[in-house]
Amino acid sequence: MLTSIALYGLSNSKKISKEISQKLKIKEGEIDTFKFADGEILVKPRETVRGKDVFLIQSTSHPVNDNLMELLIAIDAMKRASANSITVIIPYFGYARQDRKSKGREPITAKLVANLIENAGANKIILMDIHSEQIQGFFDIPVDTLKASGIILGNVLKDFSMKDLCIVSPDYGGVKRARTIATKLNVSLAIIDKRRPEPNKVEVFDILGNVENKDCILVDDMIDTGNTIIQAIDLLLSKKAKSVSVMCTHGVFSHDAISRFEELLKSKKLKKMYITDTIEDNLNIKNPKIQLVHLSGFFAEVINSQITGKSISKLYDKYWNKYIK
Amino acid sequence: MLTSIALYGLSNSKKISKEISQKLKIKEGEIDTFKFADGEILVKPRETVRGKDVFLIQSTSHPVNDNLMELLIAIDAMKRASANSITVIIPYFGYARQDRKSKGREPITAKLVANLIENAGANKIILMDIHSEQIQGFFDIPVDTLKASGIILGNVLKDFSMKDLCIVSPDYGGVKRARTIATKLNVSLAIIDKRRPEPNKVEVFDILGNVENKDCILVDDMIDTGNTIIQAIDLLLSKKAKSVSVMCTHGVFSHDAISRFEELLKSKKLKKMYITDTIEDNLNIKNPKIQLVHLSGFFAEVINSQITGKSISKLYDKYWNKYIK
Amino acid sequence: MLTSIALYGLSNSKKISKEISQKLKIKEGEIDTFKFADGEILVKPRETVRGKDVFLIQSTSHPVNDNLMELLIAIDAMKRASANSITVIIPYFGYARQDRKSKGREPITAKLVANLIENAGANKIILMDIHSEQIQGFFDIPVDTLKASGIILGNVLKDFSMKDLCIVSPDYGGVKRARTIATKLNVSLAIIDKRRPEPNKVEVFDILGNVENKDCILVDDMIDTGNTIIQAIDLLLSKKAKSVSVMCTHGVFSHDAISRFEELLKSKKLKKMYITDTIEDNLNIKNPKIQLVHLSGFFAEVINSQITGKSISKLYDKYWNKYIK
Amino acid sequence: MLTSIALYGLSNSKKISKEISQKLKIKEGEIDTFKFADGEILVKPRETVRGKDVFLIQSTSHPVNDNLMELLIAIDAMKRASANSITVIIPYFGYARQDRKSKGREPITAKLVANLIENAGANKIILMDIHSEQIQGFFDIPVDTLKASGIILGNVLKDFSMKDLCIVSPDYGGVKRARTIATKLNVSLAIIDKRRPEPNKVEVFDILGNVENKDCILVDDMIDTGNTIIQAIDLLLSKKAKSVSVMCTHGVFSHDAISRFEELLKSKKLKKMYITDTIEDNLNIKNPKIQLVHLSGFFAEVINSQITGKSISKLYDKYWNKYIK
Amino acid sequence: MLTSIALYGLSNSKKISKEISQKLKIKEGEIDTFKFADGEILVKPRETVRGKDVFLIQSTSHPVNDNLMELLIAIDAMKRASANSITVIIPYFGYARQDRKSKGREPITAKLVANLIENAGANKIILMDIHSEQIQGFFDIPVDTLKASGIILGNVLKDFSMKDLCIVSPDYGGVKRARTIATKLNVSLAIIDKRRPEPNKVEVFDILGNVENKDCILVDDMIDTGNTIIQAIDLLLSKKAKSVSVMCTHGVFSHDAISRFEELLKSKKLKKMYITDTIEDNLNIKNPKIQLVHLSGFFAEVINSQITGKSISKLYDKYWNKYIK
Amino acid sequence: MLTSIALYGLSNSKKISKEISQKLKIKEGEIDTFKFADGEILVKPRETVRGKDVFLIQSTSHPVNDNLMELLIAIDAMKRASANSITVIIPYFGYARQDRKSKGREPITAKLVANLIENAGANKIILMDIHSEQIQGFFDIPVDTLKASGIILGNVLKDFSMKDLCIVSPDYGGVKRARTIATKLNVSLAIIDKRRPEPNKVEVFDILGNVENKDCILVDDMIDTGNTIIQAIDLLLSKKAKSVSVMCTHGVFSHDAISRFEELLKSKKLKKMYITDTIEDNLNIKNPKIQLVHLSGFFAEVINSQITGKSISKLYDKYWNKYIK
Repeated sequence: MLTSIALYGLSNSKKISKEISQKLKIKEGEIDTFKFADGEILVKPRETVRGKDVFLIQSTSHPVNDNLMELLIAIDAMKRASANSITVIIPYFGYARQDRKSKGREPITAKLVANLIENAGANKIILMDIHSEQIQGFFDIPVDTLKASGIILGNVLKDFSMKDLCIVSPDYGGVKRARTIATKLNVSLAIIDKRRPEPNKVEVFDILGNVENKDCILVDDMIDTGNTIIQAIDLLLSKKAKSVSVMCTHGVFSHDAISRFEELLKSKKLKKMYITDTIEDNLNIKNPKIQLVHLSGFFAEVINSQITGKSISKLYDKYWNKYIK
Repeated sequence: MLTSIALYGLSNSKKISKEISQKLKIKEGEIDTFKFADGEILVKPRETVRGKDVFLIQSTSHPVNDNLMELLIAIDAMKRASANSITVIIPYFGYARQDRKSKGREPITAKLVANLIENAGANKIILMDIHSEQIQGFFDIPVDTLKASGIILGNVLKDFSMKDLCIVSPDYGGVKRARTIATKLNVSLAIIDKRRPEPNKVEVFDILGNVENKDCILVDDMIDTGNTIIQAIDLLLSKKAKSVSVMCTHGVFSHDAISRFEELLKSKKLKKMYITDTIEDNLNIKNPKIQLVHLSGFFAEVINSQITGKSISKLYDKYWNKYIK
Repeated sequence: MLTSIALYGLSNSKKISKEISQKLKIKEGEIDTFKFADGEILVKPRETVRGKDVFLIQSTSHPVNDNLMELLIAIDAMKRASANSITVIIPYFGYARQDRKSKGREPITAKLVANLIENAGANKIILMDIHSEQIQGFFDIPVDTLKASGIILGNVLKDFSMKDLCIVSPDYGGVKRARTIATKLNVSLAIIDKRRPEPNKVEVFDILGNVENKDCILVDDMIDTGNTIIQAIDLLLSKKAKSVSVMCTHGVFSHDAISRFEELLKSKKLKKMYITDTIEDNLNIKNPKIQLVHLSGFFAEVINSQITGKSISKLYDKYWNKYIK
Repeated sequence: MLTSIALYGLSNSKKISKEISQKLKIKEGEIDTFKFADGEILVKPRETVRGKDVFLIQSTSHPVNDNLMELLIAIDAMKRASANSITVIIPYFGYARQDRKSKGREPITAKLVANLIENAGANKIILMDIHSEQIQGFFDIPVDTLKASGIILGNVLKDFSMKDLCIVSPDYGGVKRARTIATKLNVSLAIIDKRRPEPNKVEVFDILGNVENKDCILVDDMIDTGNTIIQAIDLLLSKKAKSVSVMCTHGVFSHDAISRFEELLKSKKLKKMYITDTIEDNLNIKNPKIQLVHLSGFFAEVINSQITGKSISKLYDKYWNKYIK
Repeated sequence: MLTSIALYGLSNSKKISKEISQKLKIKEGEIDTFKFADGEILVKPRETVRGKDVFLIQSTSHPVNDNLMELLIAIDAMKRASANSITVIIPYFGYARQDRKSKGREPITAKLVANLIENAGANKIILMDIHSEQIQGFFDIPVDTLKASGIILGNVLKDFSMKDLCIVSPDYGGVKRARTIATKLNVSLAIIDKRRPEPNKVEVFDILGNVENKDCILVDDMIDTGNTIIQAIDLLLSKKAKSVSVMCTHGVFSHDAISRFEELLKSKKLKKMYITDTIEDNLNIKNPKIQLVHLSGFFAEVINSQITGKSISKLYDKYWNKYIK
Repeated sequence: MLTSIALYGLSNSKKISKEISQKLKIKEGEIDTFKFADGEILVKPRETVRGKDVFLIQSTSHPVNDNLMELLIAIDAMKRASANSITVIIPYFGYARQDRKSKGREPITAKLVANLIENAGANKIILMDIHSEQIQGFFDIPVDTLKASGIILGNVLKDFSMKDLCIVSPDYGGVKRARTIATKLNVSLAIIDKRRPEPNKVEVFDILGNVENKDCILVDDMIDTGNTIIQAIDLLLSKKAKSVSVMCTHGVFSHDAISRFEELLKSKKLKKMYITDTIEDNLNIKNPKIQLVHLSGFFAEVINSQITGKSISKLYDKYWNKYIK
C-alpha cells in the first residue's frame, strides 16, 4: 500500500523527516535544494513522483522567508511533475502570530501564507500546535492541527510525580491550553496575573492559585525572546514553588534567549526545560536539562492515519491514557 | 458625490439602516423581500442600481439562516443588476463562534459563511465587534472590523464617575477587551477567575482585583444565555462592589435571558445594562434600565469614510478623546 | 469495494437515506445536527470520514434556508475532515423556480445556490426532476439529473389499463414532459389550453385532445398551491373524462393545498394522486388514495452506478421496458 | 463623459458597430483582425485602450468557432492592454441551443462558452433575445438580456392594422413569447398544435384559436432550417388566414432556408418577413418583402444607459407606449 | 489495470489515436462529433465514462478554431459525464507562436488557449515539441512537453552515416535545439547567420561552421511557409554541402510550401525530408522522399508511463542509447 | 488628479522610489517594514490608503526571498486597507531565469512567483527588461514590460561616436536584443560564436562580424557571474577591437564579479560599463567608469501614462528619436 507514497524532508526539516520515514518504514525521497549565488533556490526531486501521494515536510522557522519559498517551490515542482496529491507538514508554522489586523492597515500575513501554500498546489496541510486555532479556517483545504502536549508530558511525568504538579499559564491567553492539561491530568492550575491594580500605579505580577511546594510546569506553545517566561519563573520562586520547569512546543529562542535559559538552569532557578524538535536548530543544544522531545513517532502515526483512512482524534488517546487512570 | 451611492437595509436591519441613511442625508434605497409560502425568499431593489456603489445592511442574528440567505440573494441581485461595488455591513455576524474546529470533524462555519458572502459577489465587508479578530482573515476582500466600546462608554460615563469605575472581564478570554478599556480610561481592572483550585475539589469563582466600593462594569462582546454574566454579578456583589452594571455589544439573549436580567435589574442587584442595536429585536425591550445604544451615527461616519477615502482608525479618537484627558 | 463509502442523511431526508443505505447494504453514517437556541446549526459526523467517498442526502424543501445551510455546513465539515470526495444528492432542489431574471434587478437564486454548494466543496451533484433542465449548466461540477416518471408510472399502471389512458399536461410549459411519457407508453396526450380567445374577452380554459371516456393522468414536476391542477381537474371532468388522477414528483403543497386535494379525493372528483417521497413531510399523509412512491430503490441504483462506474442512462430502461412491448 | 469609452466592432459585426457608434456620437475604435495562412487569428486595437471602458461587439454566428475565438482573443488583448472594463455585446449568441444535457454524456456548450468569455476577462455581457432565459445564470458577471420584439413590432404595425392581427406561436415552447406580445398589444393569439391524437395514428397539426380572416404573424426567436415555420404557414392558410407573415430576431437560415422563404414570398403564401440585423450576412438579402430591422439605435440606447447608470427596463416603455393606448 | 482508461481521438487526430490505442492494446473509445449546418459542433462519447481516466487526443492545427472548440466541448462533455480525470494530448498546439506581446496591445493567445483548456476542465496536458518552452508555465496543471527528435533521428540515421553528418540550425533561435542534437550524437554543428554586415549594406546570409562534404540536416520545430528553410538549402549547397535534408516535427506547410519542397526534392537540391504525423493532413503526402515519422509508439509509451506512474524522462534514453555509444 | 495616488518604495527600492515620486511631483507614501528577531517581516503604511490607487515599487534581487515576501505582505496590507487598485513595479524580477522545466521534475518558479503576486492581490504589474518575454503570459492581470536600452544608449552615445560603433551579442540567445539596437541605430552587429567545430574537438569561441577598429558594446539584459561577458571581452580585444564596453540593465554581480570587472576597467581592457539602478546595491559602486543609469525618470513617465490613460508604446519614441535621424 505504501509503494505510492513519497516522503520528502526539505532543508529545514531534514532530521525529523529522516526519523519519520524510518518509523513509517518507507524510503525517504531524495530531493535537492540548490541555493544560487544570488539567493535564488531550485528544488527538484531525484526520482519520478508521477501518480504518487507526496508528503513534504518543512518548518518555516528562521530564516522564515527562505524556508517558506523553498516549500512553495517544492510544491510547484511536485505539482508539475504530476504528483497525485501533495500533503504539506509544517511542524513550525512561521508568521502564525500575524493572524489578524491588530491595528489599521496591518497585513494578515498568516492568511497570506495560507493562501500562498494553497495557491502553489498543496492539497492538504498538517500543522503542529498552531498559535491560534482560527488559522485552520485560513485554509479551504483540509487541515489537521496536532497537539504535542500529550507527547511532551510523557517526558515530564518521568521526572515529576503527579501529586505535587501544578500547571502554570504564563498569561491569560494561555489559560485554555494550561487548563486542558491540568484537567486531563487532574492536577492543580495556576495563572500568572499581570495587571495594573489601580490607575496610575505600576503594573504588578501576581499568581492565581497556590504554588507553594508545587513542582510548577510553565506551559506555552512557543518561546520567542523568553521575557514573559523568565519573569514568571522569578515570580513562582518568590511564591515558594518547590521547583519551576518549562514545557513548550516551539523553541524560537530569539536574541540570547537560549543562553538566558541555560543560565537559569545552571543557577537551578529553572529545573528543566521540555521543548520539541519542530525547529531543528535546537537539536544543537547540548544541555542535559533541556530535553528535546522528538515528535517523529507521532507524525509517523498521523501520516499513517492519513494514508489508511483512520481517525487522528483517536491517536491522542494512546498517549493520554498512559497518564490518566 | 453621494449621488452614486445606494444604501439598502434588509429585513433584519431596517431600523438601523433608516437611521444611517438619515444621518448620511441620502435617500434609503427601496428594496422588497418577498417570502413565499414554501419559505423561499426573493429580494429585489425597486430602482436601478446600474453603476452605483451599493451598501447592504443586514445582521445575521436569529433566524440566522433566513437572514443570511436574504443577504446572499440581495448580493446576487445587486451584482446581476450591474452595481459598481457591493459593500456589506453586518452589525451582528452570526456563526462567529464557530471559528475553528474545537474537535475533530467539526465544520468552521464562520469561514464557510465568509466564503459564501465573497462568492455571492460582495466586494467589501464591515463588521462590528467580531467574536474573534482572526475572522478578518477568513475574508480575502477588505474587512473593517469596528469596535463599539468607545460609543457605549459615552453612555456609561453619563451614569458613573470615572473615579470609582472598575472594568470587569467575566472570564480570561475577555481580559484583552476589558484591559484595553481600563487602560484607555485609566481606571481599575478586575477579572473573574474560574478555576478548580486543587484536583478533586469543586470549581470556584474568584475575583482578581479589588472591587470593594467600585462601580463595576462587566464587559463582553455578546451575551447569549447570560449564565456567565449572571454568576459574575453575584460574585461581584459578594465582594462588596458598590454597584454592578453590564455593557456588551450584541444582545443575543437566548432562552429566557432577557427576563432573568430584568429580574436582576428589578431587584437592583444589577444597576444598568448597556447594549447596542446590532440586533433589532432588542429595540422592543422597554426597560429604562436597559439602555440601547444606537450605532447608526458611528456606522454613518464609517460609511462616509469609506466613500470619501478617509481613515477609519482616526474616527475612534473623536469618541475616546471626550473621556480621556 | 463499498468499504470506503460513507452515506449520510441530513435532517430533512433521514427516512429516504435510511432506505437507500439498506438497499445498498451499507451502514448509514451517523451524523449529528445540533440546533442552538439562537438558530445556529452545527453538523458533525460521529466517525472519521478520512479518505472516504461521502454521499450527503438532503432535500432543500421547507424550511429551505435552514435545510440548505445544514447541507452547506455538512459539506464544509466533510471537506475539512479530509473526505476523498463529496457527492450531494438533493431529492428536492429548492429555489429551482428562480432560475432566470424574469424582470430587471431580480436575482437568479438557483444559480446562487448552485455556486454556494460548489463553493462549499461538493464534487458532484445528483438531482431529481429539476424544474428546468438548464439548471444542470449552473454547475461546473458533474450533475446527474434523474427522472422519476418511469418509477411513478409503475404504480399508475397497476391501477389503470393502458388502453384508456390519456396523459394530460396542465399547461404549455409541461407539454414536453407529458409528451415524452405519452410517446413512450404509446397512449394519447391532451393539453390544457389557457388563452384569451379575442382581445377584451375573458381568458378561457380549453383542452386540446379528446379526453372523453379516458382515464386522465395530469402530469407535473411539482405541485405548490395546486391551483392550476385543481382548475384542470374540473375542466377534464366537464369534458367527460372517465376519471382524473394526478402524478407529480415533488409535493410542495403550500397553504391548504393538501386538504383541497383530499377533499377532491373524498368527493371522487379526483381518483388518485401519485407523489414521491422527495419531500419527507408528505410521509405523514395518511390517505390511501394518495400514493407515496418511494424513490430509495432508484437512488440506490444510481449511487451504485456512480460507485462502480456504470451508465445511469441504462438504468431507466429496466423501468420502462416493463411497460413497453 | 464619453471620452473614456472605446467601442469596437469585430469581423462579424462591423456594420452594426458602425451604426451604433454613429448613434452614440463616439468615434468607433480601429481594430485589426489578421487571419494567417494556417487559420490563426490575431486581433489588435490600433490605439491605446489604457484605462478605457471598452465595448466589444461580435455576433457568434456562422462560422461560429472563428467568430467566438476572435472575440476571446480581442478580450485578451484588451485586458492585457490595461482596459478599465470590458463589456461584450453579442447580438447573436451561438451555441445557445446547447443549454442542457438532453441526453446522457452531452456537453452543455452554452455554459462552456459563457465560462470561456468570463475566463478570458469580460466584465459584463449584453445579449439579444437569448434562446432560453436561464442562460443568464450561466454567467456570474452581470448580463443584460435584451428583447427585440418591441422594435420589430414598430415595423409590423406600419404594415398591418392591429384590428385583424393575430400573433401565432409555431409551437408550445414559443407560447410565452407570443402571449406576451399578444397581451401587450391586446390582439388575439393562436398556437400551432402538433400532436399524435391517438396512439398509432399519424401526428397531425392543428391550430388553437381562430385565424380566419386574420393577419397572422408567426413569432419566433430564431429561424434555422425554417421547417417548422414553413409547415405553420401552410396550416394557417388552410385555416383561412387573411395573410401570414413571420417575425423573428435571428435569421440563421441554414441550408436553402432563405430561398424557400423567398419562394413563399414570391408565391404570396407568405406576405412579409421581419428579421433583425443581429446576423450581418442577412444584410445581403435584397428582397423588399424581407424587412431587415436595424437594432443599432436600441443598442446605442442600452450602451448609453450602461455608461450613465440608467435603467434599461425603462427603455422598453418608449417603444411599447407607441403602440399601446 | 487499464480497464478504467478511455482513449478518444477527436476529428483532427483520428489516425494517430487509432494507432496509439492499438499499441496500448486498449479499445479506442467511440465518440461522435456532429457538425451542424450553422457550423456548431456537438461532441458526445457513445459509452459511459463515469469514473474513467479519459485521454483526449486532438491536434489544434488548421482549421485551428474548429479543432480547438471541438476539444473544449469534448472536455466539457467528459467532465459533465463524471470522468475521473481528463488528460489532453495535443500533438500540434496551435497559436503557440503567439506566446508574448511582441508589440503593445497584442494578445497572448497561447496563454488564452492554455486558460481555456484548463477552464474547460482538463487535469493534465501532454504536448509535443512546443514552440517555446515557457508555454509549460502558461498552465497551472501538470504539462509534459515531449520531444520528437530522438524518434525522428532513428529514421535519419538509417539514411546517413554519422561520420559525415552536420546538424544545421536555420537561425539563431534554433541553435539550442540543434546543438542538443549535435552534442548527443557527437557530430558537427552549423548555424545559418543572417546579418547586415555594415550599416547601409544589404543583409547577407552566411554559415557558421564548415559544411563542405557534409550531409547537412536542417533542424526545426515547425515549417510554416518554408521560406527560411528554402533559403538555407540554397546557401548550404553553395557552401559545398554533400547533401541537404530537413527534419522537423510539425509540417504546417501554409500556402504552396509543400509543392515548393517537392520541387526541391525532385531537383535533388533537397535530399530528404523527415516530418512527423502530428498534423494528419500530411498523411496524404505520397512522396517517398518525404518520410512521415509516426509518433504513436512514443505517445503510447508516454501514456503508459502516466498510467503506471513511471518516469517519462527515462523513456528518451531508449531511443538515444541506440545511436550513442 | 494625482491626489488619489499613493506611491510606496519598499526596502529594496527606496532610492528609485524617492526619485520617481520627486519626478511625478507627488509625496512618497510613508511605509514601515519591521524585521523581527526571528526573521519575520511586518509591512504597514503610515497613512490611510482607503480608495487610493497604490503603486508599490520593489526589486526582488538579493536577498530575493525576503524582498519577495516583503512585497507580498505589502500587497496584502494594501488590499486589506481598502486600496482601490494595486500596481506593482518590479525593476528587477528575481527568479526570471526559472521560466520553464529544462529538465524533468523542475519547478517553474517564475510562474509560481507570478501566481503568488496575483494571488496576494496585485491588479497590474510593471516589469523592466524581463529575461524572457513569455513571462508576460505567466500573469492574467495586465503586464507592461519595459525596455531600458533606449535610456542606456543615451549615455553610451555621449561617450562614443556612432560611426565606429559595433553592437555585440555575447551569445545566440541575445542576438534578437542586440540586433534590435543595431538596426535602430544603423550600426554594425557582431555575435560571439561558441561552438565545438568538429566532434571530439574542444569548444572554441569566435566572432561573427568584423570588429577591427570598432568601439564594441557588449549588450545583455543581466550580468550574474560575468563569465560569459569576460570571455567575450578578451576575444573582442584579440580581434583588434578599438575598445570594448558593456551595457546591461540588471547588474546582479554574484561572487566577485564586480571586482573582476573593476580590474578589467583598471587595466583598460574594458573601457566602460553602463548598468541601471534596478538593483540598488549597485548605487554603492564608486567607479567613474561604471556608469549607473537612473531609470526613475522613465518609470515616472510610465506611471504617469498609466494614470492618465496614455500609450506607453509612444513613450519610447522620445528616447530613440534623439539618436536616429
